[in-house]
Order: sequence, then structure tokens, then C-alpha cells
Amino acid sequence: MNKIEHIGIAVKNLADANNLFKKLFNAPHYKIETVASEGVNTSFFKVGSNKVELLEATNPESPIAKFIEKRGEGIHHIAFDVDDIASELVRLEQEGFTVLNKTPKKGADNKMVAFLHPKSTNGVLIELCQDIKE
Amino acid sequence: MNKIEHIGIAVKNLADANNLFKKLFNAPHYKIETVASEGVNTSFFKVGSNKVELLEATNPESPIAKFIEKRGEGIHHIAFDVDDIASELVRLEQEGFTVLNKTPKKGADNKMVAFLHPKSTNGVLIELCQDIKE
Repeated sequence: MNKIEHIGIAVKNLADANNLFKKLFNAPHYKIETVASEGVNTSFFKVGSNKVELLEATNPESPIAKFIEKRGEGIHHIAFDVDDIASELVRLEQEGFTVLNKTPKKGADNKMVAFLHPKSTNGVLIELCQDIKE
Repeated sequence: MNKIEHIGIAVKNLADANNLFKKLFNAPHYKIETVASEGVNTSFFKVGSNKVELLEATNPESPIAKFIEKRGEGIHHIAFDVDDIASELVRLEQEGFTVLNKTPKKGADNKMVAFLHPKSTNGVLIELCQDIKE
């Protein structure tokens, strides 16, 4: 794993959170993107070579809506950048981790992504992501 | 803020978690450090230019013991690297954030640290940290 690609933070209201995190980072978000398949609106902030992704649910069935209902707003996942997501998922499954997406799916920010179940990772929802090369 | 310095993860048993995260990162922790004033044993993993810090309580009054009792194991905080923690705390307080340590304190890994209250940051416990120059 090359670095922390981003931290995903579940928020109730993206406009309010964008304003708050703009004050925190002293710089605005650089992108907004809706991922319809996941039921989320996202915004991205750069912090050096890392990113912070804010996630707002677009409907009550969204994983983000359910997360907030259960735990409140806060950190939702950590995403690690990898060079070869397919081989990394094979390695992690062999090590005993529960891979939630054996076939990586298209995520936000032009990436292929897959998640590990937090029950296998000390309660931490972990995303692996690999840039989609054009 | 220069980058995500580390992610702090609350764990029940540091030895077990070190073994798990060694499998995750395909590399072992490089340091163990006890911060008596905080009631924690910590271990550190490198992920590129970022770190992951595991935190185990050393006593039942430790903030980590209370966190796990309330929320279970999982992500406890995000730490951002800053050049000048004192001036950044002044700026953030002026922006309306609740600074928990107006005077930065000595943290793990040779850093001065201060926290922002999660009620002022969308439920995210945020640490600022600055390297102590020898």
C-alpha cells in the first residue's frame, strides 16, 4: 500500500460540511461528485498528497444514511492507494481478511475500489483504491 | 496543514492488532511507545509518507478505554501535520473550532500535539501535530 489515499467522513449536509472543512483546511474543496450507485454526494479536499472525502447520503437507503443513523457523523472509512488492486485483494483474502468486493467496482475520483469488512480489521472500514489509467 | 500525519485506531489488544495490521500492510510496526500521561501504549506502521498509530489503553480511565467502551474498536482520530501548531490553533479558534489543548502537549513520536473537539468538526476528533526539532 502506497499511502493513505483519503479519509472518508460521513456528513449530514454537504454544503454545511464543505463550509466547515474549508475553515479547517483554510482552502475549499476542489471537486464535487455524485456516485449514484452508492447513493452518495461526495466532495474532496486536498491535504498535501492526501485527500479528505466528505460523504452525504442521497437517499435513506444509502450506506451513509445508515451509518449516520447508527453512529452519528464522523469518520466512515480509510482508503489506501495500491498499484494492483486485484492481486492485493487475493493476498488479503489469503491472510484472512473479509473482502466485500471480490471484483473491484468503479468508485468516485476515477478509481477502482474494493472494501474490507470492518469485522476483520479491528472495526475499521478499509477501502483499497487503484487509479483508472485512461 | 501539510498532510495526514497519521490515523489513530483504538484497539483492545496491541499484540493481536500488531499481528493483524502486519498482515494488512504486509510489513510490521516499526515502533512501540507508551505515553503514560495519556494512558496508552502505541505502535506505529508506515504507509508511504503516512502512518497508522494503534492505541491500546493501559488503564480503565484511559480515553481509549472509554472510547472502546462506548463505540467499540475502530478509528479514533486523524492527525494532520502542521508547521506551526501555535499559530494554527489561534487561526482555528478564530474560525469557531473548539480547541481542547490551547497549549500543545507532548505526544507520541516526538511531537507537540493538540486536539479539536469533535462536536466542532462533524464528529471527527482531529489532532494537529508538529515535529519537535532537536
